[in-house]
Amino acid sequence: MPEGKVASHETRVSRETSFRVRYAETDQMGVVYYANYLIWMEMGRAEYCRAAGIRYRDLELDAGILMAVVEAHCRYLSPARYDEEIAVKTWVASATRRAVEFEYEIREAQSGRQLATGRTKHVFVGAGMTTVKLPEKYWLMFGIRASTT
Amino acid sequence: MPEGKVASHETRVSRETSFRVRYAETDQMGVVYYANYLIWMEMGRAEYCRAAGIRYRDLELDAGILMAVVEAHCRYLSPARYDEEIAVKTWVASATRRAVEFEYEIREAQSGRQLATGRTKHVFVGAGMTTVKLPEKYWLMFGIRASTT
Amino acid sequence: MPEGKVASHETRVSRETSFRVRYAETDQMGVVYYANYLIWMEMGRAEYCRAAGIRYRDLELDAGILMAVVEAHCRYLSPARYDEEIAVKTWVASATRRAVEFEYEIREAQSGRQLATGRTKHVFVGAGMTTVKLPEKYWLMFGIRASTT
Amino acid sequence: MPEGKVASHETRVSRETSFRVRYAETDQMGVVYYANYLIWMEMGRAEYCRAAGIRYRDLELDAGILMAVVEAHCRYLSPARYDEEIAVKTWVASATRRAVEFEYEIREAQSGRQLATGRTKHVFVGAGMTTVKLPEKYWLMFGIRASTT
Repeated sequence: MPEGKVASHETRVSRETSFRVRYAETDQMGVVYYANYLIWMEMGRAEYCRAAGIRYRDLELDAGILMAVVEAHCRYLSPARYDEEIAVKTWVASATRRAVEFEYEIREAQSGRQLATGRTKHVFVGAGMTTVKLPEKYWLMFGIRASTT
Repeated sequence: MPEGKVASHETRVSRETSFRVRYAETDQMGVVYYANYLIWMEMGRAEYCRAAGIRYRDLELDAGILMAVVEAHCRYLSPARYDEEIAVKTWVASATRRAVEFEYEIREAQSGRQLATGRTKHVFVGAGMTTVKLPEKYWLMFGIRASTT
Repeated sequence: MPEGKVASHETRVSRETSFRVRYAETDQMGVVYYANYLIWMEMGRAEYCRAAGIRYRDLELDAGILMAVVEAHCRYLSPARYDEEIAVKTWVASATRRAVEFEYEIREAQSGRQLATGRTKHVFVGAGMTTVKLPEKYWLMFGIRASTT
Repeated sequence: MPEGKVASHETRVSRETSFRVRYAETDQMGVVYYANYLIWMEMGRAEYCRAAGIRYRDLELDAGILMAVVEAHCRYLSPARYDEEIAVKTWVASATRRAVEFEYEIREAQSGRQLATGRTKHVFVGAGMTTVKLPEKYWLMFGIRASTT
């Protein structure tokens, strides 16, 4: 039985979350330090899951399933600055029962100025960091269709 | 039976650890962001424990004992800057079987310029964050004397 | 001429800001790492200033005035956990033309559970970290009354 | 006149820096939070520059040149844990007078266990974040050869 496939284009949904740049996130260059964009992507993932009806926190606590990151990529287009309102748009680029890939678009909310684009890939793991298959009840939130698995 | 008392003055030992300021630790003011000093204090604690023969990591893993912070204080004297070498001196100000108080002196290592002084108070907790008494084999590292407990 | 005094009790105002705990803010103890509370206090200060009609960002950019922290204190009452909604209440405890002291109350927003209380003290500095007197147009936001200066 | 080219293979040098995982760097999964690897890469870059005879700090202060990141990538191979000693090996993958690309290999120092590999791309910018050409005196440290420019 093959793995679940990527959600078809027409069902793809994206979610957005927004927040202000913290002083702690800036560096002496006067802009946001580059590692913080990965934290923002994680906030995007959490919001994506919440919007899909599953709190990421419950996925961990109830199902014992963690999303271990295996790859992260970020392209920096324009520096973000202190106190700017940041909007992170998140969607699932591809998903199977074993792995999920998220993509992100990060903008300054007021002007719409594009700040960065990103991509992270995760595998589902259980206790002890061993890989597991995602239980069926969570397939929908990642756009995995039963018919294709 | 009363709780363990503060180590007597003559047995007090301090330990020092040093490292360079990371770019990520600066903010747009061009100096180290103030919350990072608490991270440096934690590094001081870890080093203090290591020097006392106990890796803090093993205290958690083997004994299941965590040091939950209940209070932290920092006085900022002179700003630390990127790439400076920082020296953190750590000692136990007081300790009982239930709680320990650390004090810290943070300096720029080359010049000896004093950057900050700090103090943190911790209680020993086990699983579920319930308070526990520190097992006897760990008393010495915190300067708790059997004769005074 | 004496310094400005503490705002009288009846004019004291507090402001609240809220946000969710980020995954990045947790540590292996399963709770929020203790240094992050100082970041949350800074968010409280920023929100306090914004509500008072001054963006902290503009204070820095337009007036060239920075609030250099000289002291920080936090009392930890109950651990915050991932994805909880945090509410930070901030008010000015005392202020003169040279220094301002903020106090904070940090709660879990849904239950009202008190997580921490804090206090930070700042001096006003200009370029080169030299102390300056706060220009009169900013007195009101910190509750400094002209009559008492 | 064409831009400087990649350093030839035979002149490629790598530098290593090592440090211990901080408690603050862990998350509730019990391993190092993924954004911290980008901070470690920055420490690798700083050490690479220092070994090449230029403190990155002086590049900023004296020459007014910043390395603005335009792209970052990390592949996570094995989770790093609290208190482990981390070794970051850094080298210049390619460099011109306008841009430089670093690559990184991150290992657990004792066992040599590979934790991650990374890559970051930077452009040289001056005040106001406008792109500049790297002055000739810094070419050597990035392996840019005059003959090829």
